[in-house]
Amino acid sequence: MHAAGFIQDLAVIMIVAGIVTLIFHRFKQPVVLGYILAGVIIGPHTPPFSLIHEQDTVHTLAELGVMFLLFSLGLEFNIKKLARVGVAAVVAGIAEIVVMMWLGYQIGRWFGWQNMDALFLGAMLAISSTTIIIKALEELNLKHHRFAQLIFGILIVEDILAIAMIVLLTGIATSGALSTTAVMATLGELTLFMVVSLVVGILTIPRLLNYIDAFKSQEMLLISVLGLLFGFCLLVVKLEYSMALGAFVIGAIIAESRQVKKIEHLIEPIRDMFSAIFFVAIGLLFNPSVLFEYTIPIIVITVAVVVGKVVSCSVGAFVAGQDGRTSMRIGMGLAQIGEFSFIIASLGITLHVTSDFLYPIAVAVAAITTLLTPYLIRGADPIGQKLATWMPAKVIHVATAYTTWLQNIQPQGDSVMIAKIIRRILIHVFVNFALVVAIFISCAYFMDVVESYVPSLTIFAGLEKAVVWSGALLASLPFLIAAYRKLKALSMLLAEMSVKPDKAGQYNVQARTIISEVIPIVAILVMLLLISALSSSILPPANLLVAVLVLFAVLVPLLWGRFVRLHSRLQIALIETLDDDSQAH
Amino acid sequence: MHAAGFIQDLAVIMIVAGIVTLIFHRFKQPVVLGYILAGVIIGPHTPPFSLIHEQDTVHTLAELGVMFLLFSLGLEFNIKKLARVGVAAVVAGIAEIVVMMWLGYQIGRWFGWQNMDALFLGAMLAISSTTIIIKALEELNLKHHRFAQLIFGILIVEDILAIAMIVLLTGIATSGALSTTAVMATLGELTLFMVVSLVVGILTIPRLLNYIDAFKSQEMLLISVLGLLFGFCLLVVKLEYSMALGAFVIGAIIAESRQVKKIEHLIEPIRDMFSAIFFVAIGLLFNPSVLFEYTIPIIVITVAVVVGKVVSCSVGAFVAGQDGRTSMRIGMGLAQIGEFSFIIASLGITLHVTSDFLYPIAVAVAAITTLLTPYLIRGADPIGQKLATWMPAKVIHVATAYTTWLQNIQPQGDSVMIAKIIRRILIHVFVNFALVVAIFISCAYFMDVVESYVPSLTIFAGLEKAVVWSGALLASLPFLIAAYRKLKALSMLLAEMSVKPDKAGQYNVQARTIISEVIPIVAILVMLLLISALSSSILPPANLLVAVLVLFAVLVPLLWGRFVRLHSRLQIALIETLDDDSQAH
Repeated sequence: MHAAGFIQDLAVIMIVAGIVTLIFHRFKQPVVLGYILAGVIIGPHTPPFSLIHEQDTVHTLAELGVMFLLFSLGLEFNIKKLARVGVAAVVAGIAEIVVMMWLGYQIGRWFGWQNMDALFLGAMLAISSTTIIIKALEELNLKHHRFAQLIFGILIVEDILAIAMIVLLTGIATSGALSTTAVMATLGELTLFMVVSLVVGILTIPRLLNYIDAFKSQEMLLISVLGLLFGFCLLVVKLEYSMALGAFVIGAIIAESRQVKKIEHLIEPIRDMFSAIFFVAIGLLFNPSVLFEYTIPIIVITVAVVVGKVVSCSVGAFVAGQDGRTSMRIGMGLAQIGEFSFIIASLGITLHVTSDFLYPIAVAVAAITTLLTPYLIRGADPIGQKLATWMPAKVIHVATAYTTWLQNIQPQGDSVMIAKIIRRILIHVFVNFALVVAIFISCAYFMDVVESYVPSLTIFAGLEKAVVWSGALLASLPFLIAAYRKLKALSMLLAEMSVKPDKAGQYNVQARTIISEVIPIVAILVMLLLISALSSSILPPANLLVAVLVLFAVLVPLLWGRFVRLHSRLQIALIETLDDDSQAH
Repeated sequence: MHAAGFIQDLAVIMIVAGIVTLIFHRFKQPVVLGYILAGVIIGPHTPPFSLIHEQDTVHTLAELGVMFLLFSLGLEFNIKKLARVGVAAVVAGIAEIVVMMWLGYQIGRWFGWQNMDALFLGAMLAISSTTIIIKALEELNLKHHRFAQLIFGILIVEDILAIAMIVLLTGIATSGALSTTAVMATLGELTLFMVVSLVVGILTIPRLLNYIDAFKSQEMLLISVLGLLFGFCLLVVKLEYSMALGAFVIGAIIAESRQVKKIEHLIEPIRDMFSAIFFVAIGLLFNPSVLFEYTIPIIVITVAVVVGKVVSCSVGAFVAGQDGRTSMRIGMGLAQIGEFSFIIASLGITLHVTSDFLYPIAVAVAAITTLLTPYLIRGADPIGQKLATWMPAKVIHVATAYTTWLQNIQPQGDSVMIAKIIRRILIHVFVNFALVVAIFISCAYFMDVVESYVPSLTIFAGLEKAVVWSGALLASLPFLIAAYRKLKALSMLLAEMSVKPDKAGQYNVQARTIISEVIPIVAILVMLLLISALSSSILPPANLLVAVLVLFAVLVPLLWGRFVRLHSRLQIALIETLDDDSQAH
């Protein structure tokens, strides 16, 4: 019986994991380490022999573990919260990732490892462990302190950058090169994908879940959520992104629904079950003999993680305006690696670009730094004080001067308001353009599919292209019109600002007119350029093109008001959904 | 990527299941049918083509679905509740199963099917669907009526008999024959297994769960419960019973723990996920063309299920003392087949003993009878009244006379008490003997394993056997002593009763002494016989045997009091755990 072997594997995993985590919990050590140790015990690298029969099935289930872990992370993610944590989190997060990637890469090269190994090592060291930090802060009862809130902000920034990193690493690993253009293209595509998914998702999915929840059946809500999760992951995999990205984004979308608490509750046992399998599977791949062979790298990398993260995060937070004590606590809290390192190590193995020793090293470093985390958090204040007494007076003087200077240059009054308005307009324009791009790409893809299934259609290639292209244009119009109107508003605002009120006169009025006229015209030109670039594959032949354009020239003025109303309804719906979650959270 | 195909399968299953069940729920039809239809839609038998890539993996996950379904059923099972539902449930349940098995077998033979097909058809028709009934009664808001409580009682009886049926069918299918000795041996082994598992389980597992729950970690509780579930299922599979039996028994054991509500809550999403896969997998195997080919059998079997179950359950309940209206309602409520039929149909396929057409017929009949269930329950009273007017006056007269007679023969007063005491003593003796049997069998198995790993030990075969045998005897002693003491108490009770107090005299005292002396002596003889039968494979050679027996002859009187105390502590612990659940439920 095929199933019996599988049941045996699951039985062994759950029993050993249960016993080991019981012991770990008893001695107040992180449960995650217990799972990994359980994996090592039942794995093929330790005596007596491998207790697992169907490694493949276990690893498939472990992938579901990654999916559910990232889905949960997405459910806890909150777009508005991200906007609130502000500059400090972004600066510290980016500082940490850049420093750690560079450090990891250098260490790898220094040990004479392959380029790709060094790169993946850098990525592994970049991201701190959300799970470990939350558990450590909970146990130390520090979760509601200010520095803890900032740490959570940094973790959110890291989550997003980690997703970008996974996409980039996959790209680099498949193409083998790291060109700036490729990076920009990849990041651009990723941004486009995330913006469109989030906007479309937040407009549709919370409504769908409201409808389903009205049946008051937990089972149906669960099955629907699983359908959305698996379905979106499938779409994302077809687009050649990672499943992890899909799980995170659909989680972030569902996080905006009113049912998010209920859904978290339903998903939790499933996540716990599969993530246990995931962590055990990490242990299965861990070969303890590597510990002896690579003792030096493990020690060097561990020191690099602790020192590098403490320094980069502390300095980042300090530069972003936090006081010395808070900065120190932030740095100490983030000084470990965890689940993301395993995900990235797994990625390297799946893509067949990293060497075998990298995985056990990541596991060893993660285990050591995880064990250190509670002590580092508790030690932040004493160490900070020691450091302050050791530091030369000059350094302290400069630091204090910097803090004072930073407080003085904070923008205040009207200019803050105007900057906010401008930022908001630019975001709106960007989102609208992203949607237009998505519409045209989808139409082009749709036509490819139709052509591949019904090749005879190519006889009417002209007409068919005209229909699809007009459809895309029509669907884009509300967003193009909205973008145009936003840009026009921006141009008027800029014109108003550019002219100092005390220097009124003919010249000023002219300048004002020019600014307020030029920007909309430039906007239209940019839009036309964008559309023609996007249309390249579905642009109809010239005669039909002219006909379609004439048609639109008549239609646009007629439908203008209707499109404006449609767009503002969509926008209101989106903002309402985003605001609504403040009740749910 | 192997995992992508798997994710795609799960995505297709969850999305189609979600949409179809949404529609079914919208039109107030059972969700289970939605899952099955979803399976048919994505299955290989319907156009356009099979949307599932890894059928094997899906069917492995479906087996987990059966496991979690039966585990949930076990969690809702309650040993004390079973004692309370009383005679009516047992009579009606057995009547239903016997009638339906016979009817199913006869129909199968009548259609000229193979012997095994007819037998499995009988088994498929025997058990009603707990899921469907609970959902129907909930929707009709009848769950707390008296007849509903009786229906649940019958369902519990059916669950136990179904477990026995699975074991028997597996035995018959593998051996090919149906001998009375084999049936008795199988049922005896099954009873032994269940009694020992329940006693040992209820003594240990609730305590273990209390310990784990003290850590206040839902994740750890879940992983431990999964470890127990998978581990016990593995043990059961190694003993060549079905996984379904293991899941049900461990569920019934955990049902006696204080954490049962919490555990039900944690398991529910996991069960819903895997059981959805199970029901979809049923649909995958369903070939709609069978519907046209086997229209007549499907109609005949459907009619047989409805008429057969209504008549057998109603008459059974009426014979057991229920009034006509309640009996009618009970019969109407139970007139369908469901998940157990699929489990039995799957069993036939797994064992390669049934024909291909049996499965789709079971699915079709289950679908039709499930759809009928709510209408039948609602129609019970009107149909019952119609029936009463149609029935000849004579029948009604006989029925009324029967009910009156039944009420008159109910035992009352002292004799009820004494019967209860005697029953309790016999149960205690039986449980103690079962434990002794289990101890000796485990020791014999343990010795087999040791010998197969360390064959050199056979040189000291005598000594080694003596050690194991003494160990087994020592471990059994508390239970043997307890059984002896219970039987002695029984003998005194019987002696007391056998002698009418008004006829005191020399003869009576003698009779009393004989009864109170003879029974304990017979008990000791039976025990010695039992032990020597059980010891056959581990009995040491004569000289060592004598030594061990002498040792025990010295030890037993010395340790008698200690063993009595140990046993009563165990007994108190068991009864406390059983009583404790009244708080939890």
